[in-house]
Amino acid sequence: MKKFAPVGALLAVLAGTAVHADDSDGIEYRQHIMKTLDEEMAAIGMILANRAPTDALATHTRILATTAATAKKAFEPKIPGGEAKPEVWANWADFAKRLDALTAATGQLAQVDAAAATGVRADLATACKGCHDQYRVPKK
Amino acid sequence: MKKFAPVGALLAVLAGTAVHADDSDGIEYRQHIMKTLDEEMAAIGMILANRAPTDALATHTRILATTAATAKKAFEPKIPGGEAKPEVWANWADFAKRLDALTAATGQLAQVDAAAATGVRADLATACKGCHDQYRVPKK
Repeated sequence: MKKFAPVGALLAVLAGTAVHADDSDGIEYRQHIMKTLDEEMAAIGMILANRAPTDALATHTRILATTAATAKKAFEPKIPGGEAKPEVWANWADFAKRLDALTAATGQLAQVDAAAATGVRADLATACKGCHDQYRVPKK
Repeated sequence: MKKFAPVGALLAVLAGTAVHADDSDGIEYRQHIMKTLDEEMAAIGMILANRAPTDALATHTRILATTAATAKKAFEPKIPGGEAKPEVWANWADFAKRLDALTAATGQLAQVDAAAATGVRADLATACKGCHDQYRVPKK
């Protein structure tokens, strides 16, 4: 079987270098998405408070809407951990409904002008908080 | 002049509640943009390393490209501070050229498939590092 040794060595190298998604990857990935939502909500909040240039509002709302649409998919794999409570998957139907509402609300924000955006953003912030209270481990 | 007192009181209230952008706002705003770039680059890096679902690649590259386009505008006001070195404005032409290159590279990333994306992302990471080395205060 000596002639297979190089193949075995090659397989060992491949096993060492091939990368596969594991649970910590799933957690890390969804955290990048939620942090993007966070940063973009903050940028939008600054614009609506006249603390940043209004002309960037449409761009940030578009980024927020696009990101929100990726969030549900990122939570679909049942991987408890990070800041997610186990209730995310125990109450998946409710959690998914809330993420759908988030996507719809951000899409709506992307379509309104600055005057109407303040109201939509307030609804959105309430939606964020409602879901975080229910499904996110409280910050220490 | 007694009849003007209520007007004066109203003006005082308005002065207290009206919000105007100041320097710390300018710094905070551009930090939200750079952090969004960071999170999205990380998400894309995970996808290209097979640590997150490939089907989200197009969405993340689109978010990255859209965000990159907002970065230059956010640095235009000359507000030293945060992690930005004064060289950002001292060498504005070079800094602006690098941000234009970033926008072009992210736009390119948004148009390639997963196989080609790895190479573009490597170029992009080099561009990020090159600019950070030159213009960002080193992390402690």
